[in-house]
Amino acid sequence: MDYQNILNVVHATVAPLIGCGRLPECIPALTTVDPSRFGLALATVDGAVYGVGDWRTPFSIQSVSKVFSLALVLSRDAESVWRRVGREPSGGPYNSLQQLEHDRGIPRNPFINTGALVVVDRLTTLAGNAGVAVLDLLRAESGNPTMRADPNVAKSEAEHSHRNAALAHLLASYGNLANPIDAVLDQYTTQCAIAMSCRDLASAAGFLARHGLRADGSRLLSRSDTKRLNATMLTCGTYDYAGEFAYRVGLPAKSGIGGGILAVVPNRCTLAVWGPGLDEYGNSCAGLAALDAFTTQTGWSVF
Amino acid sequence: MDYQNILNVVHATVAPLIGCGRLPECIPALTTVDPSRFGLALATVDGAVYGVGDWRTPFSIQSVSKVFSLALVLSRDAESVWRRVGREPSGGPYNSLQQLEHDRGIPRNPFINTGALVVVDRLTTLAGNAGVAVLDLLRAESGNPTMRADPNVAKSEAEHSHRNAALAHLLASYGNLANPIDAVLDQYTTQCAIAMSCRDLASAAGFLARHGLRADGSRLLSRSDTKRLNATMLTCGTYDYAGEFAYRVGLPAKSGIGGGILAVVPNRCTLAVWGPGLDEYGNSCAGLAALDAFTTQTGWSVF
Amino acid sequence: MDYQNILNVVHATVAPLIGCGRLPECIPALTTVDPSRFGLALATVDGAVYGVGDWRTPFSIQSVSKVFSLALVLSRDAESVWRRVGREPSGGPYNSLQQLEHDRGIPRNPFINTGALVVVDRLTTLAGNAGVAVLDLLRAESGNPTMRADPNVAKSEAEHSHRNAALAHLLASYGNLANPIDAVLDQYTTQCAIAMSCRDLASAAGFLARHGLRADGSRLLSRSDTKRLNATMLTCGTYDYAGEFAYRVGLPAKSGIGGGILAVVPNRCTLAVWGPGLDEYGNSCAGLAALDAFTTQTGWSVF
Amino acid sequence: MDYQNILNVVHATVAPLIGCGRLPECIPALTTVDPSRFGLALATVDGAVYGVGDWRTPFSIQSVSKVFSLALVLSRDAESVWRRVGREPSGGPYNSLQQLEHDRGIPRNPFINTGALVVVDRLTTLAGNAGVAVLDLLRAESGNPTMRADPNVAKSEAEHSHRNAALAHLLASYGNLANPIDAVLDQYTTQCAIAMSCRDLASAAGFLARHGLRADGSRLLSRSDTKRLNATMLTCGTYDYAGEFAYRVGLPAKSGIGGGILAVVPNRCTLAVWGPGLDEYGNSCAGLAALDAFTTQTGWSVF
Repeated sequence: MDYQNILNVVHATVAPLIGCGRLPECIPALTTVDPSRFGLALATVDGAVYGVGDWRTPFSIQSVSKVFSLALVLSRDAESVWRRVGREPSGGPYNSLQQLEHDRGIPRNPFINTGALVVVDRLTTLAGNAGVAVLDLLRAESGNPTMRADPNVAKSEAEHSHRNAALAHLLASYGNLANPIDAVLDQYTTQCAIAMSCRDLASAAGFLARHGLRADGSRLLSRSDTKRLNATMLTCGTYDYAGEFAYRVGLPAKSGIGGGILAVVPNRCTLAVWGPGLDEYGNSCAGLAALDAFTTQTGWSVF
Repeated sequence: MDYQNILNVVHATVAPLIGCGRLPECIPALTTVDPSRFGLALATVDGAVYGVGDWRTPFSIQSVSKVFSLALVLSRDAESVWRRVGREPSGGPYNSLQQLEHDRGIPRNPFINTGALVVVDRLTTLAGNAGVAVLDLLRAESGNPTMRADPNVAKSEAEHSHRNAALAHLLASYGNLANPIDAVLDQYTTQCAIAMSCRDLASAAGFLARHGLRADGSRLLSRSDTKRLNATMLTCGTYDYAGEFAYRVGLPAKSGIGGGILAVVPNRCTLAVWGPGLDEYGNSCAGLAALDAFTTQTGWSVF
Repeated sequence: MDYQNILNVVHATVAPLIGCGRLPECIPALTTVDPSRFGLALATVDGAVYGVGDWRTPFSIQSVSKVFSLALVLSRDAESVWRRVGREPSGGPYNSLQQLEHDRGIPRNPFINTGALVVVDRLTTLAGNAGVAVLDLLRAESGNPTMRADPNVAKSEAEHSHRNAALAHLLASYGNLANPIDAVLDQYTTQCAIAMSCRDLASAAGFLARHGLRADGSRLLSRSDTKRLNATMLTCGTYDYAGEFAYRVGLPAKSGIGGGILAVVPNRCTLAVWGPGLDEYGNSCAGLAALDAFTTQTGWSVF
Repeated sequence: MDYQNILNVVHATVAPLIGCGRLPECIPALTTVDPSRFGLALATVDGAVYGVGDWRTPFSIQSVSKVFSLALVLSRDAESVWRRVGREPSGGPYNSLQQLEHDRGIPRNPFINTGALVVVDRLTTLAGNAGVAVLDLLRAESGNPTMRADPNVAKSEAEHSHRNAALAHLLASYGNLANPIDAVLDQYTTQCAIAMSCRDLASAAGFLARHGLRADGSRLLSRSDTKRLNATMLTCGTYDYAGEFAYRVGLPAKSGIGGGILAVVPNRCTLAVWGPGLDEYGNSCAGLAALDAFTTQTGWSVF
């Protein structure tokens, strides 16, 4: 399989769409990104990495980080977190308070903001410092020890966090946060502000395509938990677009409002794509198009 | 692969759960079924069929029929129906009127009742008689020409159809039904009342595992549309349990309140399981357990 | 009190607003009405009637009729209907199906469409023919024996009744309709299609200002039930604008999409106003302004 | 009118209901109140006060305080607050976040918690210290200079305020809070924790029955704003029971989870009743029954 050629074809296919979409308004620091950037990287299960465009340029991974904090929680205590967060698609805007009320403080899934706050809370309990734990994992798996959270993005996010603070207080009102709210919000903000390149992100997520094995061959997740994490990404990883994404692309994936999308071809490879312009659902326009083109090209959906 | 042995092991594993759950109250004719029945069949892509328990006993397929009417619509006119029905998980009770109002008459997906009514309406326009078209497909693919809709179930369903009539009138109020309401409801009731055995159901769905090829090798659906149909089954096929089902079983599937579940292992086989007792989401208790046991046994989830 | 002068001042005050708003699109026969019509009538508790503008011209009373069918039900069986319909403001669009589902088939109040269907169903059981019963009451109280339902409006309404049919089927699915759906819809459509002038409407509603006494001095409703009916009009009579209406006007009232509003000044008089153009809530623009001007002029709110 | 006799009759009528209902669980300090307490006071517009039972015992007025902070805001700047909060009944649980999302940060009315937070925020801007301003008004109007907020209740409330903090952050995320969240929550908690007797509460609210005139004859509110405040109390003052309350009692009123209810008979008198046990809607069981008995006895509803 000539991966580099495939990436080149995908790049050419989506070229007209690069720069489309809108930058997110909710975090001012993200609005200064050049909307015409585009990167795509593919990491095979045996460690080779290929890329096109701005695949070596770090961007803010935002909600893509939720995959890694969840993986860390599952690796340490696979069951208990599922009593505090569900596994169903939300069927509504990704940060809706409505469902949290309806479900009495149990977020629908770990990838909506409320669910991710519960995961970060659990990781804080298990690991002491959730942000450091996520960063350690990402550095080790990508082999890039200089990776860090962007302090400007973290600061900008913290300054515009009334909605997440509302979510955290609401979780706390239902008894579904164990740590102090400020600590949980701080760790959450930190992990969202991590800056990574497509190259590093695709590499760091390799365990999802290797049935749970880390880059060094040691086990992070059981085979079964890895499949389940992939399943949850497929049904819940792209906000209210999950059904469409499964229909069009057919791969487990997680997107972030920094314009990144991480996708998994189990047993074969992981893909990381970056294009800052977002569609109405908060997913990267060019990124979606690239993954669509990739599966059309290769025939590699899970279905 | 010793399929018969796998089915035997699955049967033994779920034996304690056979008879669990509740019979559906909404259709009186379904409440007379013996809750201790259980059948499981597996049809390989090359036509071999294996089974355990009551795998040759016909049961009411109910919503499983929605897969076949959708497949027929997609085979004749793959795009237009998607302007009238979405592809997102509903995130709420499977027959909620609320979302239809919110989405101005566009059902969330083709497997909730409103979406299925739109599909039947479209099939009625395309094929003249939707019920006959579905029955013809099922007979041809299963090789069982005696298959039919159970007139008692159809009558019972028609007599308790105020809710579906409400859904149909609401769709019509948004201009999303082209045929007379009574005709659409009649065709819908007919397809739901079709009685099939696990053996016939697994065989009839073989095209979903064969990338769209029918039993005789002719093409029903394109490779791409087949993948997409499987994707929609995975994200929307088991009502509000779709996220859990993907997490636990990890296969495209469609369930019905007759206690049947159809599941697809792309490129390998299809499975049909039947246990009349339902869980709180309307899925067969024993059927879910059997599919869970099957994927645990074989490792064959799509992830 | 120089009523005629007050009405003249009100008329002059609202003159600039006559013709504002939009005609309802849901019933074609109502879209042919001249939007520049405006009438206002006041009937004192002792039977004197005053008017300005088109106060002698019949218009389609639509939902204003709901007051009279409810009064008739209360006059015959004051308690049982309240087990089938609530008395709370709906807090949402006036014909939402959502709340009916949430409240398991019990409409929020008798003035939203679902609640009115239940009232008509009850009146059909009590009186045989609900439409005739309402018309008899209106004719007797207004002293106009020629009043009738406009057949064109009734026909137009019946032809665009998918939404009401959906509501009726949904009520029936919860067991909250006792009569055949078609009969209930037919009676409901008939009462909505009644054409009355402001003069006749203000006169016919006099019992609401006379603590339940009819024009001939006989009792229709108990003093207590009359107060309660007025209370329900205040909290629920003007769709989602009830809070605003209470705030601005402060009188029990019921509006209809024919552009009519009926208002009650207990112990003093009733008012009927008509202006076909509607605001975003479905209330007559000029009618609201006229009632606002009337209470400003007289100081006669109930508060 | 022999007010004392009327109150005695009411007291005797509701005696069997005293002690019914449940104490609120959300504020621990309120759960230590003796549920068998009951007080009722009536203050005439000319300053006479009558009472029965524990009418001189202070209790926590909680949400009844919202009437006074709103009156103070309206007295200083009658219009601007209505751009930030609506006047419609909520049609759902009194502290629902759902509607705030739907209405993009504009609370439905000033008596649900979100609306009251906006009012307190506005009063903080206008008066510097909202809690002091409310206390000053209550002391002056009741003639009781020793009245104060109960520090135990305030502390208990502050310790269990995650839900109100969530509401405040959500308001802030929509730009609908001008002051720091902690300050607004603190002022809100202070006003809710004010302890007053029925005697003092009925006296303090006299301006609502005197068309806006304070006890000393000076004007707090315009006649028009007073009527409007009364109207808002009628439609929104008793949570999701407002429709029922209007139907059964027919008076403007505001209740609190401390078991107090304040009711207004315009131009005649104000009533304050206290019974700690609450019904499912959060209103005092014995208090509702007492007001119902009072209007039955006197015939004094506004309708």
